[in-house]
Amino acid sequence: MRQDKILNIPAIRRMPTYLHKLLKMRSEGRVSVSSTELAEYMHIELIVVRKDISLTGISGQRRVGYDVNELIRYIKNYLGWDESLSAALIGAGSLGTALLGYDDFEHYGFQIGQVFDTDPDKVGRKIYGRTVRHIDEMAEAFAEKQPEIAVICVSNNAAQRVADRVIELGVRYIWNFANVSLNVPPHVVVQREVIAGGLAMLAVKRKQEKNSAKQDLII
Amino acid sequence: MRQDKILNIPAIRRMPTYLHKLLKMRSEGRVSVSSTELAEYMHIELIVVRKDISLTGISGQRRVGYDVNELIRYIKNYLGWDESLSAALIGAGSLGTALLGYDDFEHYGFQIGQVFDTDPDKVGRKIYGRTVRHIDEMAEAFAEKQPEIAVICVSNNAAQRVADRVIELGVRYIWNFANVSLNVPPHVVVQREVIAGGLAMLAVKRKQEKNSAKQDLII
Repeated sequence: MRQDKILNIPAIRRMPTYLHKLLKMRSEGRVSVSSTELAEYMHIELIVVRKDISLTGISGQRRVGYDVNELIRYIKNYLGWDESLSAALIGAGSLGTALLGYDDFEHYGFQIGQVFDTDPDKVGRKIYGRTVRHIDEMAEAFAEKQPEIAVICVSNNAAQRVADRVIELGVRYIWNFANVSLNVPPHVVVQREVIAGGLAMLAVKRKQEKNSAKQDLII
Repeated sequence: MRQDKILNIPAIRRMPTYLHKLLKMRSEGRVSVSSTELAEYMHIELIVVRKDISLTGISGQRRVGYDVNELIRYIKNYLGWDESLSAALIGAGSLGTALLGYDDFEHYGFQIGQVFDTDPDKVGRKIYGRTVRHIDEMAEAFAEKQPEIAVICVSNNAAQRVADRVIELGVRYIWNFANVSLNVPPHVVVQREVIAGGLAMLAVKRKQEKNSAKQDLII
């Protein structure tokens, strides 16, 4: 896997949250939004919001704020979410099921159209409208419709095997929820999702608090 | 909610991944590890690994690498994971179930000991060894054992109500998986988990590739 430098990781991770808020505002009939309002919503500093938004290339209109529609368009364009992204999900356990039920994906053009598992209790069942197929049918299913992204939600033990198989079948982007580092050829991009990353953030915030409380006592 | 500056967000998010790898190495009998090996595992640059690790305060032994045990201890201490963190999970749907089944939490001292829901089909059932109790029993359960962290996995509509309730019952740290910005008093810390953040990362990587492929064509 290449080690392309991706700058502004926190900013990129915040983009869906802006988008979620903006889509909600639009549905409520709002036409413009100030960076101050977004900063309050996000609980981050104004300057950070302005920097985040400037990444998208939009030119701010300082007095009236941003046009909601335009900002949605710029964020979607920045992320490449203005076109549809087709995905196959492998592993229809509880995490896979949670992802299939995630409402916002459709607004992001992210369409998990295919679901695979090996468990006979799951194969043939419908989850949020998609029928679970056996993983052995993957080649056939991909021949009908080639997904661009594979979402791997299988156990740690099975993840590398599943990755090898989807790559063999032409997938170049993998969103990996298994807690393993996948070995993939250089043309394949993997985004590893470590659910405990957020817990680490919360834990550090807690630790900082405890430390500053200790300092207060010492002073 | 305060807007304390947390530096090195990506580094903090990577900590559980280092820890996961180091724990695995230790269980395999390894006693030392080089930053080069960690960089290869993480698919990131050596300098980034060194910076990440230096955050923990460990002093590197350049020739023989890091002592695995010591590095585990420093990372755990940095995150405050050397003491046990008790948690209550509210919302035993598919995402909540996935979190309850996440093996690594126990190595992080993160113990989700209590599970609540309102669904009569779920209340009384056992999920990974924990019995789901009705949310109305929360006050009673917290009086028996006060959790430090609340993990909110309920629907977006119910999230604020649940947050208000756990705060009222003395919780100061919230790990929020609902896709809403919670309003909380200043003494409460919220970590909002936006699952689509990883998808945004993958999408930007894909977009960068498409752009550079276009440039190749133009050149």
